[in-house]
Amino acid sequence: MRDAYHEELDSIGDGLVEMARLVGSAIGRATTALLDADLKIAESVIAADEKVDDLQRDLENRAVTLLARQQPVATDLRIVVTSLRMSADLERSGDLARHVAKLARLRFPGTAVPHDLHSTILEMGQLAQRLMAKAAEVIVTKDIDDALQLEQDDDRMDELHRALFQHLLDDRWKHGIETAVDVTLVGRYYERFADHAVSVAKRVVFLVTGEHADELTPPATPITSEPA
Amino acid sequence: MRDAYHEELDSIGDGLVEMARLVGSAIGRATTALLDADLKIAESVIAADEKVDDLQRDLENRAVTLLARQQPVATDLRIVVTSLRMSADLERSGDLARHVAKLARLRFPGTAVPHDLHSTILEMGQLAQRLMAKAAEVIVTKDIDDALQLEQDDDRMDELHRALFQHLLDDRWKHGIETAVDVTLVGRYYERFADHAVSVAKRVVFLVTGEHADELTPPATPITSEPA
Repeated sequence: MRDAYHEELDSIGDGLVEMARLVGSAIGRATTALLDADLKIAESVIAADEKVDDLQRDLENRAVTLLARQQPVATDLRIVVTSLRMSADLERSGDLARHVAKLARLRFPGTAVPHDLHSTILEMGQLAQRLMAKAAEVIVTKDIDDALQLEQDDDRMDELHRALFQHLLDDRWKHGIETAVDVTLVGRYYERFADHAVSVAKRVVFLVTGEHADELTPPATPITSEPA
Repeated sequence: MRDAYHEELDSIGDGLVEMARLVGSAIGRATTALLDADLKIAESVIAADEKVDDLQRDLENRAVTLLARQQPVATDLRIVVTSLRMSADLERSGDLARHVAKLARLRFPGTAVPHDLHSTILEMGQLAQRLMAKAAEVIVTKDIDDALQLEQDDDRMDELHRALFQHLLDDRWKHGIETAVDVTLVGRYYERFADHAVSVAKRVVFLVTGEHADELTPPATPITSEPA
């Protein structure tokens, strides 16, 4: 009985890693769709998000069934509860990738991102994908140092987000209001996506140490169009 | 033993209602701070969010302790797991109210919202507060019809959000890019706040019926600067 039980716990872990891989891939492809105005990729990202939602529902059901049947305590209980929270972070990340893809589709055959912001948005997209890949790794390795490192890596996202606003607010901005609105929303989507990746990693810290990572590091402040 | 147990379950419910009331009040006061450029109120909203975070942490700890000690099954288990999810929605709503207040503080003594958008933002703020008040009620009453009604009420938020974008994209927009960015972010904060209130209500539906409210109603699409 205990063996089947730990197999089920492991399979919940596998499900989380699978979700993290799917949403990491989704944010990468959504960025391509956005920058290359590629409708097909945008559509595929939008369609693929259903798979993420299905995975989450399945994972939640299995976690609750496990709680009911096996009534885990101590570390095992912490794993199940933490898994529920991680799956919510990952499902939300998938939504954000879908939002980026939807914006790409909406502006097709044009592009929501003006040429002079391509490199910033590309870096935000790549960083978001990398953070999620690291979060997936950390779920497997449970390496605390790697998990805490994600928050440092996320500082770069904040810098990029600030750079985006500086560009938007530059007097020489010539792309009009619609593009300013699009870029504001896209910037927010990437920032939130990265926050969720960091949150997944923090939950691994909690899992291993029983301490909230927040108690070790100060909380991030949201970025607005505030001058740096 | 069972009595102490059900008392603890009830007290978790009370904690959720308390959180909902706090964040409902916060979004109302944040809206006042934003529209009246009231720095004192903005500061008080920002400071009060810590109370919400503390409540959430306390509530989560109690829920996990309950799972470990009492090992609830069936409905009781569903209540505890659902409470964990609701507390995450409410904590996030508190963050969004704080974001609105921070924007008010950032633009003080000016205001982030131009005069011709005051009534739209005021209605968004009032609606957000009302949706959260209804969500708090639904946690107590567990009335399914009222819970499902929240999703209908949220349609008005979508209309307001769309109106905001129409105004932003009107050729006669004369408030510049910074204000466009501020208004875009504020609109998103209210929309997400309302989403979380709806989500709390949907979780009550799940609690009572065992069915996800999503299976009864189509999912909402995010609003971008898409023409209506």
